[in-house]
Amino acid sequence: MKGVYLVTDQNSCLHHNLETVVSETIRAGICLVQLREKNIDTRSFLNRALAMKAILAPFSVPLIINDRVDIALASGANGVHIGQSDMPYEAARRLLGPDAIIGLSVETWEDVTTAQDLSVNYIGVSPIFSTPTKTDTKEPWGIAGLEKIKAYSRHPLVAIGGINLSNAARVIRAGADSIAVISAICSAEDPFEATHRLGSYFRQTRTPQENP
Amino acid sequence: MKGVYLVTDQNSCLHHNLETVVSETIRAGICLVQLREKNIDTRSFLNRALAMKAILAPFSVPLIINDRVDIALASGANGVHIGQSDMPYEAARRLLGPDAIIGLSVETWEDVTTAQDLSVNYIGVSPIFSTPTKTDTKEPWGIAGLEKIKAYSRHPLVAIGGINLSNAARVIRAGADSIAVISAICSAEDPFEATHRLGSYFRQTRTPQENP
Repeated sequence: MKGVYLVTDQNSCLHHNLETVVSETIRAGICLVQLREKNIDTRSFLNRALAMKAILAPFSVPLIINDRVDIALASGANGVHIGQSDMPYEAARRLLGPDAIIGLSVETWEDVTTAQDLSVNYIGVSPIFSTPTKTDTKEPWGIAGLEKIKAYSRHPLVAIGGINLSNAARVIRAGADSIAVISAICSAEDPFEATHRLGSYFRQTRTPQENP
Repeated sequence: MKGVYLVTDQNSCLHHNLETVVSETIRAGICLVQLREKNIDTRSFLNRALAMKAILAPFSVPLIINDRVDIALASGANGVHIGQSDMPYEAARRLLGPDAIIGLSVETWEDVTTAQDLSVNYIGVSPIFSTPTKTDTKEPWGIAGLEKIKAYSRHPLVAIGGINLSNAARVIRAGADSIAVISAICSAEDPFEATHRLGSYFRQTRTPQENP
């Protein structure tokens, strides 16, 4: 769970179809793909998960499913990302088993402290910045909020919400183990280049003498 | 899978809350409850399933969940009802195991013939009559369609769609092993009485000399 994390959004894919975007991000070293679908039926969601799994599996890039444990189980995905209105962590873990990747969104400080006692694989700090893609989220954490969580939490932090080329370096310096992006990759003219540049901020920030 | 089958719909509960309706139908001998929820988040759906399971379990009335295999697994429900746009039967069976109840809606003759090779626990013949509750369904089967399926299918038939006190006897005589109702019970002033009267048609039609 280090590096650039892609959250899919069909509607954000402006220049290429989603399969092309994902293939390009694989070439550029994406660390994980989260398949997020809203307002589609279960059969269509499952078919998209199976198609995505077929793209990612040869490269051993993990696929996780937003919210739907049944889709994860039926598609052979590696886990789920759950929010505070989705299945409770304990139920998801029981159904998916000890080896599944389970990420949990934290939107309030109480969410952060509650997550401390859970064996989640990461917490999704959401949103870092305000974003048009998701409208049902709480107040943005900002860089200061992310730093506060970094100092407290025992979990890897996936930062999500409004992250793009202009602010990714700051987010990584503030403690993000991974940055999750939607439109910064899906809407890019060159998804390979976008992923590669986002990833480069991890390499840069890992060399303190170059980035004091 | 014999008798009156309740499909829940919060919005159809005009005179009592859903818990009261269900408790009354238990007293009147309901054979199964299908929890159907649309447009609510996973956490809320699971909580409703757990609450329903707690009501039904002491009376050994099976609970099945519409569409969502994950909700069924997490709530300890007895199975699922799936439509043609939900998870494929084989995937649902694999996840739920051999003892689960899995019902499958059939809306076309092709659905009926395909279901013949599946180990479903029943097929839901949907809709029998046109109905305002569901708007996404195909042409109604009518009594003639139900009779045709009865002559062909090896599965128990649950008839659903527009069934009420005025037409239940005809539906049962045409071969329904069970009649699934929503508003005929949920919207009734006296859900016990409605369930009891619907059930009485089964008892009557089982005595041919009384109902030639």
